[in-house]
Formats: sequence, C-alpha cells, structure tokens
Amino acid sequence: MKIVDFIPFESVTLTDGFWKDRFDLNKNVSLSNVRKRFEESGRFDALRFNYAATGKKPHFFYDSDVAKWMEAVAYLLEQDPAGMREHENLCEELIDCMEHAQREDGYLNSEHQQIDPHLIFKNRDRHELYCAGHLIEAAIAYHKTTGRDRFLKIMERYCDLIERVFLVEGSAEFMTPGHEEIELALIKLYRHTKKEKYLTMARFFLEMRGNNEKDKPIYEDNLFGSQDDVDIRHLEHANGHCVRALYLYSGVADLAAETDDALLFENLEKVFSDITNGKLYITGGVGSTPTTESFTVPYDLPNRTAYTESCCAVAMMMFASRMRKLSKQAKYGHLCERVLYNAMLSSTSLDGKSFFYENPLEIALEEYGREVAVPRRQHTRLPITQRLEVFHCSCCPPNINRFFAHLGDYICVDEGDSLCIEQYISAKLDTPHGSIIIDEEFARNGKARITSTDYVAKTISIRLPEWCKKLTASLNGEHITPAIRDGYAYFTVDESFVLDLDFGISLFFVSANPCVRENVGRMALLRGPVVYCMEGVDNGKRLNRIEVSIDALQDATESPDFHGLYSVSLPALRLKENQALYFDASDNTYDFVRIKCIPYFAFANRGESDMLVWMRRHK
Amino acid sequence: MKIVDFIPFESVTLTDGFWKDRFDLNKNVSLSNVRKRFEESGRFDALRFNYAATGKKPHFFYDSDVAKWMEAVAYLLEQDPAGMREHENLCEELIDCMEHAQREDGYLNSEHQQIDPHLIFKNRDRHELYCAGHLIEAAIAYHKTTGRDRFLKIMERYCDLIERVFLVEGSAEFMTPGHEEIELALIKLYRHTKKEKYLTMARFFLEMRGNNEKDKPIYEDNLFGSQDDVDIRHLEHANGHCVRALYLYSGVADLAAETDDALLFENLEKVFSDITNGKLYITGGVGSTPTTESFTVPYDLPNRTAYTESCCAVAMMMFASRMRKLSKQAKYGHLCERVLYNAMLSSTSLDGKSFFYENPLEIALEEYGREVAVPRRQHTRLPITQRLEVFHCSCCPPNINRFFAHLGDYICVDEGDSLCIEQYISAKLDTPHGSIIIDEEFARNGKARITSTDYVAKTISIRLPEWCKKLTASLNGEHITPAIRDGYAYFTVDESFVLDLDFGISLFFVSANPCVRENVGRMALLRGPVVYCMEGVDNGKRLNRIEVSIDALQDATESPDFHGLYSVSLPALRLKENQALYFDASDNTYDFVRIKCIPYFAFANRGESDMLVWMRRHK
Repeated sequence: MKIVDFIPFESVTLTDGFWKDRFDLNKNVSLSNVRKRFEESGRFDALRFNYAATGKKPHFFYDSDVAKWMEAVAYLLEQDPAGMREHENLCEELIDCMEHAQREDGYLNSEHQQIDPHLIFKNRDRHELYCAGHLIEAAIAYHKTTGRDRFLKIMERYCDLIERVFLVEGSAEFMTPGHEEIELALIKLYRHTKKEKYLTMARFFLEMRGNNEKDKPIYEDNLFGSQDDVDIRHLEHANGHCVRALYLYSGVADLAAETDDALLFENLEKVFSDITNGKLYITGGVGSTPTTESFTVPYDLPNRTAYTESCCAVAMMMFASRMRKLSKQAKYGHLCERVLYNAMLSSTSLDGKSFFYENPLEIALEEYGREVAVPRRQHTRLPITQRLEVFHCSCCPPNINRFFAHLGDYICVDEGDSLCIEQYISAKLDTPHGSIIIDEEFARNGKARITSTDYVAKTISIRLPEWCKKLTASLNGEHITPAIRDGYAYFTVDESFVLDLDFGISLFFVSANPCVRENVGRMALLRGPVVYCMEGVDNGKRLNRIEVSIDALQDATESPDFHGLYSVSLPALRLKENQALYFDASDNTYDFVRIKCIPYFAFANRGESDMLVWMRRHK
Repeated sequence: MKIVDFIPFESVTLTDGFWKDRFDLNKNVSLSNVRKRFEESGRFDALRFNYAATGKKPHFFYDSDVAKWMEAVAYLLEQDPAGMREHENLCEELIDCMEHAQREDGYLNSEHQQIDPHLIFKNRDRHELYCAGHLIEAAIAYHKTTGRDRFLKIMERYCDLIERVFLVEGSAEFMTPGHEEIELALIKLYRHTKKEKYLTMARFFLEMRGNNEKDKPIYEDNLFGSQDDVDIRHLEHANGHCVRALYLYSGVADLAAETDDALLFENLEKVFSDITNGKLYITGGVGSTPTTESFTVPYDLPNRTAYTESCCAVAMMMFASRMRKLSKQAKYGHLCERVLYNAMLSSTSLDGKSFFYENPLEIALEEYGREVAVPRRQHTRLPITQRLEVFHCSCCPPNINRFFAHLGDYICVDEGDSLCIEQYISAKLDTPHGSIIIDEEFARNGKARITSTDYVAKTISIRLPEWCKKLTASLNGEHITPAIRDGYAYFTVDESFVLDLDFGISLFFVSANPCVRENVGRMALLRGPVVYCMEGVDNGKRLNRIEVSIDALQDATESPDFHGLYSVSLPALRLKENQALYFDASDNTYDFVRIKCIPYFAFANRGESDMLVWMRRHK
C-alpha cells in the first residue's frame, strides 16, 4: 500500500471564512464554557485527587473527559499561547496532581484509586484503558506543543504497568477493554516515541478482541456490543456501539498503516461500505438505536430516535481520514465533507456554548407528551430537543473541543510527489512542496481558490465533491479542463499559480433507498454539502403535514441570511387540519404555502421547535 | 334514560350467509380445536384439581380460559344440543371437580388452591376475581341453557365469600382487582337471580376503583395501567390496559342501565369519543402499545407494533353494544360493524383452527431479522406473523369461541314500541313484535332484505352504515324514501312486508387525521365495511415501495374470489429497487404494476408474508 499523510494541523493556519469562525468559536467560547461546567461538576477535582477533602465523587470516565479537554488546550497552545495561558495553568496543575497521585506501580485513574481500588482491572466496562488512552493522547499533544515531558512520562509509567498486567502477566480480569481508545493512543505513542513496545501493545489489544475466551460481552447476550463478534482479521460489518466501533476501526487502520497489512485494509473497506451502503444518516451521523448506542442493520435509520452521537461525528472523521491515508479514493473525503457540514456542526449551538449528545433528524414535540400513558420503564428514549452545556455523560463537548482545535489536520494530503486537496477550508498550509493558500466560499457558492507562489510539485489534485455535476476550473485566469480520475481532478501547475474552482452548487433533493422504511415517500433538501431541515418556528406545528414537489426547486428562493449560509424558501402544500380520525381520502384539502428551510446544523437555535429533515414528497 | 335491550341470541337463528359460515366454523372447528389445545396444555386439568397427581402446574388465569370455553358451550347447547354433547360431558366433569374442590368457605381457584394458597386475596394482579367473574358468566349461561343449577350454586357460594372478604371484612389486601371482569359478571348474576346483593357487590368494585388508598397500581409508577387514575364518576379518557379498560366501561354501562345514572352515561360518552376520535385503528382494534397492552394518547396508532388484541375486539363489542342500550345513536353500531368485519374476523384463521393475539396493521418480515444487532432485552416487541392454535396467555381463543356462540345478541334492538336493526346478519329473529327475517349480502354487494309476515309494531328502523352515501330502499317492491334521523332510516310497515335495502357499496380510500404520524401520506382501501390490505404473497416484498393514486379506483377490478368477498386489483406505481443508500430524487424510477388487495381479515392465511393496510398515496 502507498501510505500517505495529511499535512498536520501545526503546519496549517486557518484563515478568515466559514471554518475559521467555527474554529474561533471553539477556541474562544466552547473551550472555556466546557471548562466552567467541568469545574462545577467536579471533573477537574477528579484529577486533583481531592475526593477525601471535597466529597465530590468522580465518575469512572471523568479522566477521559478532562483528558480530551487538555488535548484541545495543547493543540491550541500551538497557535495562541497567550490566549491559552489560563488553560495551560490548569493543565499544569492537573499534571502536578497526577504526578503526585500516580501509584508506585504506575496506575493512574482518579475514580478507581479514590473510590473503587478493589475494582482495578477487574471490570471490562469501567473504562480504565479508555481513560488511559485519552490521557496518553493528551500527554503526547502536550509534549509536542510545550516540549515539556512530565505528563508524557507519567503516561509512559502507566503504560509499563498496562504492559505488565495485560501482556506479560495476564493478571487483569479481561483482555480487551469494553471501550476502545487505548489502541489508537498506543499507536500514536509509538509514532511519537518510536518505541516498538507501544506498537506491540496496540497490536495486542487489537488482535485479542473477539479472539479470546476471557472477555465477557458488555451487553449480556450480544457479542456485537463492543465488537466481540469477530476478530480484526475477519471484520466485515460495522457492529455494536458506534463510537467504540469507529475507534476500533481507526485503530485497525493505524495498524494496517504501520504494518502495511493489506488484509486489514480490505476488511476496513468492507466495513466502510457496510456503513455507507446502509448504516449512514444523510447527515453523516451513525447509530440507529439509542438504547445501546449502536449500529443495527442496513437500512434501519429511524429519524426521531436517531442516536447519531456527536462523538460519532468525531470518530467518523478519524476513521474516514485514516482510510484516506491508506488509499486515494474520493469516498473518504466525501464522507468527511458530509460529516463536517452536518453531523459535526449540529453538535454545537451557534453561540458555541452548548452541545447535543444525540443529533436526531426529526423532532415532533407532541411525542414528548405521549409517554404519560405508559410506565416509565417502557418509555421510548427520545432525544433531547435543546443543546445542553454539560451532560452526566459529557464525552461529546471535550471531544468537539479537541476536534476543532486540530481541524487543520483534515484538509490536504501530502502524496509524496504532490499535494491533494481533500477539504475546502480557507487556510494557509506550509507543506514540503511549498505554501498553499485555500480561499473558499464552498458551502456558500460552491467556489474555492487555491494559490501558491512557491509550489514545486508540478501537479496538484483536488477532490470533486460528490454533488458536483460539472466542475468549472480556471488556472491563472484561463479556463481549463482537467483530467478527472476516480473523483479527483488533476492540474499541472507552475510554481506560482491561481486555481479557481467552481463546483456548480445548487439545491437538490435526495431520495433514500426504498429499504429505508422511515424515508419512503420522502426527500431531503441539500445545497452542495449542506443538508437542510424545516423547523416549526418557521413552518408551524406538525411538519409532516407539509408536502413538497420535486418541481418546487424551480420556484425556490435563497436568502443569504442564515449564519453565513442561505435559508431557502420553497412552495409547498400543507394538509389542512381535520377533526375526524378517518375520512374519505378525496376530502383531503391543502393550503398552498411557502416553507422555509435552514441548514440542518443550525436547528434548535431559536427555542424548542419541531424539526424535520426528510420531507414528504408530493408527486 | 330510555334503556332498551337487544333481542337475545336465544331468540335468533342465524341463516345461511357470511356470518352463519363463521358461526358454524366456530362451533364445528374452533371450539373443538381450542378444547384439544386446552386439554394438551393442562388447562382442563387445572379445574380437575389434579395437580398433585399429574404435576401439571396450573397458571393463575387458567380458570378464566376454561370458563370462557364453557360459556361458549353453554350458548351453543341452546341451538345444537346433540352436536355439543361431548363438550357438555366435559363441562359436567369439570363442574363435578369444582364442586368437589371448592373450599368450605366457598373459595374456588385452581391455581391458588393447588399452588399458592398463601397468596389468596393478597395480590391484586393475580386474576382471582377475573377468574371468578368468567366462571360466574359461564355458570349463568349453563344454568340458562341446561336448567341445571349446580354450577351456579358453586359460584353463588363463592360470591358469598367474596362479599364477606371484600365488602364486609375488607380483609383482602386489595379492594379492586387488577383485571376487571367480576363487575360485569356480578351485574349479570343480579339480572339472572334478581338478588340485589350482586348489584351491590358490582357497584362496590366499580365505585372503589381509583377511589381508595389500598390498591397499588399494577405498573409501578403508572395509575393508568388498570384504570386507577380516576373513579367512575370522573371518567373521561380511555386509559391503560385495553381489555381491562373496556371491561370496566362495560361494567359501568351496566351499572348506569340498572341505576338509570345519567352521569355515568355522560362519562362513558366522553370515553367513547376519546376512543373513536383518536385511539381507534381503522380495523376497529385498539391498543397502541404491546408493552403494557394499553391505550396511550390520541393519534398514537403505530401499525407494525399495533397491539389490538383479539380480546379487545370482543370487549369493544361488549362496550359499544351496551352503549347502544343506553342511547339510540348510530355511532355505536358503526363501531360494532367496523370491529365485526375487521378486528374480530382477523382474529381467527380462515380454517378456524388458529388465532391471533395481536392483530397488526403492517408486517414487514425484514424487520424480524433486524433485532440481531441489539441485546434481547432491547428488542422491539413485534407481533407474530402467523396465527397459533394456543398461546401461553391464551385468553383470546375461548373469548372468540364465546363471542361467535352468541353473535345473535348484536343484531336487533327491541325499543319497546318497535324494532331497530343494528347489524345486517342473515337470521330469523323471534321478537315480541313478530318474526323478522334478515337476508343479507351486506359486505358482498351492500344489500339486505328484511321481511316479516306477522310484524305488529308498525314502524321499523334500520341503522345506515357510516359508509353509505345513498340508500336505495323499496318496500314491497315499491321504491320508497324513508325518513332519516341521526343515522337511522325509519319505515312504516304493515304486518307483512318485504323491505329491500341497497346501501350503495363501493370501493373508497380513507385518510387518517394528519396527527396520526404513521399514516401521513397514506390511504387505506375499504369496500363497504371491509378494510383491505396488500400482502407480499400477491405483491412482492417491501410493500412500501408501492404508491397508489386515489384515481386508481377508476380502473379497479373486483373478483368475487376471496372467501365470499371480493379481491380488488388496482393500478399502482412501484419504486424500483436501487442500490444506493442516497441518490438524486429525480432518479427515482417506477414500474407500472397492478396490485391485488384482499380483505384485511383474511391476511396471513397463505403463509408468512409482508402485509400493509395503509398504502402510500401517490398524488
């Protein structure tokens, strides 16, 4: 396999535009707000190891929440040391505490040390290795940015213990963790330290999964829950808890890259297809049931009870971008684009302060009152309708913090002999082949300009968006028809060039496979990469009363009034309310209305409201 | 209130036709088949009180199963003593056993006496009074038909104990039973014996419900479950377990009739409207969730997970016909007709041998494989797709047995000064006003003939079906335009008359209220009283791919080939299968097909198959 790498975020400076706004919002608002809520909820206290003094009981995954937040700070220190000073001080305080609290043998976990020492390495689903993994990732980031290795050394000492307990002695009561993460972290640690043993450890945890008798399934009778159904050499389907699954596949992709293992890549291709052929929401979200937060079976994509955790968006970016490193296929970038503009952005409120855990594709507020008639245990789990600043299980907010902090990582691939632009995000990239500037209004008008004055690689390729029907390109002001192969356009350029790209953005309706029962007879509106939705606040209650014809596009109007993008107005029919429960079908009457659609990611920013992505199709 | 009665089934002889076929099927096949399965499963052994000898452990509601079967036998003895001889012998055997086993103090319950004597009158949800009620109803029927009062005396002794324990001493650990039934039975016993104390007992159980501190809710946190949310003087909504609820409302209606209590009637009117305005399936079934077998909230009418227990069809007939006794309104007969031709008939296979417990309005076989990916505890309860001969909870089959055995009870009301035909069922009725013969092809061609040679009441009224747009009537061969008031047509007749009625049957599509989310954009096909469905066996897999236009009726063809009724062929569009998960909506392609629709009640008689009542509407 030809294995490539993305230009790392350290070499990328986002410049003014749609994504820089989101990057800044994360840096300036979200990160501080998560800090506040974590301070209030005792999450930092957990790693201060002060339970005896404060009585604030840590939860067994608090360390991972804090670790992800620290990782975000570490990434942002790179670009804004002054702005991050206060956060850096907190990190140093926490590192002090960890150094002080770490057990003689290297063990480090705030909950197990303070509350449940008798459970150390006893229970597969208590997230010890998951917490360790996130702390390792944070420590690596912190070392890279600050050059200070105290945190890293703490985690290396902990790794020594993990190696002894799991690989040497086999004395833990499980072999692989209930929640994947350590695998990724260990490979990252191997890459950072070049110490072979970390690769060996990662390989152990990856290869033992589904391949040993010791591990008990997380969900009683269900091997899929934490990917115990098959071992990685027989992977075919995306199964079980989605975040755990995608972390596993990312780890396997890393192992494939490090060991040049084509079988692992082929298996991951099957998994990737299994997702994109039947288990992917149009928003790029995954997870069809909230009860086990898991993948289910192809075409089972309910909208109101969609789970589509925000962490899945983060994890999908990890998996798809790793696949791109193993193989130049446009589908990986297509999926990243879908996730970025939809499932990822919807996770955060437009003011940057609050977050969704689940990101549903439909909200019908009426349904939230329906449960009164049945006992509480029997209630359907319906997602919350407004974002919150912190959750009991608050894994998503700091995961979003760290994602946006290294957004630069996903833009451009260095293929050794040239560059390949995967995502159109305004930025200045310092690459081994020269500096590249991307200037985009991609989601706004489907255009991007790529320029350089010192590009030495002679060719550059760009990913053609999935929705692009016709690319109009000009090089240095001259219209040009590039070679197009497998979803990429190839340009021959001089050292200094200005490449203008127009992907021909337009509104279009998408149908789902007829096997997706929830979407039969329905369409979703998109504009380029952006999925649209209707909200009750614009369109009244009971959005399913509305029918839209595919011809409505001819009479659509776009208004550039929605947070940098367009809202869309369309003619539609709305079924009149009717008192009768059943009535002659020829008595249906409609109002001719215009409906307003907004980008899906912006839903639930104007108070509680009904919301609908998949509109009923008239004709 | 003017309180009237139906002509009792003892005075009604069904004559050849659609319903006589069903009556005979029940008498000749279903009853014997239920007997076989009950013998095999130890249900009769329960009442033989031979657990010590056989080791066959009775369940705590086995007595009620057997009682309903005995009640059916008692009804049928009236019309076919010779044919019922074998069943009568079994009844006598069981009565011997009960007489022998009944405790000194009158207590009689096979499970509690043999297995759990320590639980006697301790647990509200162990169906002791429910079993007692069914045994009382059986004993009354048996006494009426055979004139032998042994069984009745057993039950009267038991009633003495129940009166002492519940009304006098209050020594039971609950005041009202978890499952209603005793209330109905006691009023029937009062009517049969004229002993006031049974009315007092019935009133006690009815009035204490939702009106005392002693009763604990059946479902932990939910007062609706067994109608503990309000007392009968404040009834407004249909709530909780549907069968229990409808038995309660039937009991309240009986009490209203016996005490001429207008408030109770008004409350029941609210409950009736609550059901018909938002909680009723188009088939006449009720029950929107299988998990608690209960009503939920208006417009919550899921099709695939419809509960619509067969016992609900029986209970709805009980409730609606009782309401008709209290008030001459056509809506009660409309509902009975809807239930009869749909929810009631669907309960039994066309060969009479097997039964549905739940009667769903959609089956998508694919979904039954979907659950593999989630732990068993999290599975959605999907209804079975083929009828069974017996169930663990086999309340429905003997309830259906007894229902068909006294079908004659629902046809004609004696209003004191005239008769009113409520249901068009071919029969000869001996009434105080003379003999009436109904000869119908109601569901086949929308026609009925009513004749008499000795009718002395001068006027006769008939209920106009809800779907009848234009009645064509002729009296003694002469076209006549009757007076029509509140859904009834009134005719002045001589002693001897022939009244021909043509209700103008035709195919029509029905829409559901837009608040019923499952049916938005869908239509159901009806032909007169009969709801139609599509089956996979005729129309292929994934019936939701099919779209039908309301104009399809113009090109419909009817074939008189489906068990005495018509199957219907319609032009339709079928979405072509598509490999992609998402694709441009303008790429949808259709096949022009003809679909075959059959009466809903006949579904699942040709092997496992997809099934759909609510078809997607094209335009």
